[in-house]
Amino acid sequence: MSELRKDPVSRRWVIFSPDRAHRPVDVKPKAEENMQEDIKNCPFCEGKEKTSGAEILAYDKVLGRKPNTPGWWVRVLENKYPALESRETLEKTAEGIYDWMNDLGRHEIIVETPNHFIQLPELTEEEIEKVLLSFKERYYNIKNNPHIEYILIFKNYGKEAGASLQHSHSQLIATPVVPNRIKEEIKNSHEYYTFRDRCIFCDIVTQELSSKKRIIEENQDFVSFVFYAGRFPYETWILPKEHASNFEDTSIEKIRSLSEILKKTLSKIQKALNDTPYNLVFHTLPVKMKDKEYYHWHIEIMPKTTRVAGFEWGSGFYINPILPEDAAKILNSME
Amino acid sequence: MSELRKDPVSRRWVIFSPDRAHRPVDVKPKAEENMQEDIKNCPFCEGKEKTSGAEILAYDKVLGRKPNTPGWWVRVLENKYPALESRETLEKTAEGIYDWMNDLGRHEIIVETPNHFIQLPELTEEEIEKVLLSFKERYYNIKNNPHIEYILIFKNYGKEAGASLQHSHSQLIATPVVPNRIKEEIKNSHEYYTFRDRCIFCDIVTQELSSKKRIIEENQDFVSFVFYAGRFPYETWILPKEHASNFEDTSIEKIRSLSEILKKTLSKIQKALNDTPYNLVFHTLPVKMKDKEYYHWHIEIMPKTTRVAGFEWGSGFYINPILPEDAAKILNSME
Repeated sequence: MSELRKDPVSRRWVIFSPDRAHRPVDVKPKAEENMQEDIKNCPFCEGKEKTSGAEILAYDKVLGRKPNTPGWWVRVLENKYPALESRETLEKTAEGIYDWMNDLGRHEIIVETPNHFIQLPELTEEEIEKVLLSFKERYYNIKNNPHIEYILIFKNYGKEAGASLQHSHSQLIATPVVPNRIKEEIKNSHEYYTFRDRCIFCDIVTQELSSKKRIIEENQDFVSFVFYAGRFPYETWILPKEHASNFEDTSIEKIRSLSEILKKTLSKIQKALNDTPYNLVFHTLPVKMKDKEYYHWHIEIMPKTTRVAGFEWGSGFYINPILPEDAAKILNSME
Repeated sequence: MSELRKDPVSRRWVIFSPDRAHRPVDVKPKAEENMQEDIKNCPFCEGKEKTSGAEILAYDKVLGRKPNTPGWWVRVLENKYPALESRETLEKTAEGIYDWMNDLGRHEIIVETPNHFIQLPELTEEEIEKVLLSFKERYYNIKNNPHIEYILIFKNYGKEAGASLQHSHSQLIATPVVPNRIKEEIKNSHEYYTFRDRCIFCDIVTQELSSKKRIIEENQDFVSFVFYAGRFPYETWILPKEHASNFEDTSIEKIRSLSEILKKTLSKIQKALNDTPYNLVFHTLPVKMKDKEYYHWHIEIMPKTTRVAGFEWGSGFYINPILPEDAAKILNSME
């Protein structure tokens, strides 16, 4: 059982989750990998459905498939070592000057493919589309819980990016408070809108499309570029070209386009950086907010080629050794 | 040459420093270390003074010692691969909707001992005192530069904490803007003071000393404890017991006490966590602020036993698998 505690100085919530210390780990540095050995214990592989967390949703390959059996494209599971759990009541209390909360929320795993040997960028566009649709479907289901304030969808790939299992998967964590990082984005983009009457993200898209110096991919609906002030080398953002504040309202046609740009962008990054670990995070409005003219949902992809050190932890500044324009040139030489 | 760019959404500055990609690295995972081999190329060892960055300050062991020669306790150097540099003028400009600044600042290395084989917690209290005094002395020197807004003193120990060289050292980076993390601490602690007429950090010290559950060390002037809402397992803070907002004004007597508690606290952490990598960061007021009743300088020590992943990057939430009370018990069993 977890608990949430708040740092009264930074006002940041921390989830204390002693059970997660016991979760299984099969991710190793590349040199030590032994896929044939690892696959035996993988709970996410086709045929191992009964050893994984309980199935919440699956897109079936086989007509009339029963839950927790083979024959699926994408499978959404309860995390067996959840950071937050489904609970009836949200308890909040004080511990002297500190603030405390129980661990109400959700923690789900999206297994992106039945195949242990294929990673997200190697899936077909149709397969990636199913992964993205499962995000939407789970999002809509969970947002009905009145205690849930935010749903964060993310992916950790590789040991240095915090992954514990090799098999290609994403995660969803639903939280009972709006995270600070999102509050900050909303506050700042709202202030920008108040000042200029324009969405800050729309302005970024316009400038990137016109300067062309940092663009990685573009299609009818989306654009990806190395971010002008990225914290990490090759940090790449994907945004809808047309203003849209809520990811979950993306139409099926646009999910198709998103699948295409995501595959192409990630493929370039993985090729240029020799299959480097990365984090991928969806940024969207809190569940109780809708259609804001000042906020624009997007994806941030953060390859982990550098380490965050004392200067970054102490200041919130980052040091990035590669200019985004140079990173874009390198990524675009990977065809 | 570096440059600073601002993320208009988070309002976070990022230092782009292409030269730092070329800095030498001798830190390896523990298993691959070969000290006898590494020492040959170490620029911080006694006898190698001419291969290091230029000496700015040294505490001499030998009377009449000349700069850049052996015979010292502590040596402060120009970083040969600086993130920021001494410059005459601070240039600020717009790049379309983005903000840009030149790389005015300072980046110094404090070599804590002439001996390659001794790390900070193994130094004597008298030796650590000299390290702390060198921080004070450099701080006072640099704060006279009218363009400098903040001076961050920190230490990265071990590869996973971002260190590039083994030889025991700390760093100082002076920045032309107040970092966001510090702005946030100041704003929040000021709001708390407005509400309660008390310093939030004094309240934390009082509660920790009375509950005793998380205390690691205590002496006449300082206390160290595992922080109630630490982001990382075993995250430990050291605070002066009496209210004090500026580290640089710590008296010589108190520097002696600080040296004692720092040595004892770090020793427990290193023993309990098997010499784990850590970051250590001083938090103090911006150079142009003085004696504020609402802010309290302190040190944050962050052992790196877990990895920061997508959920943390996307939310600003953290997941910590060990309760601070349990961590304190483990640290205190190390005598």
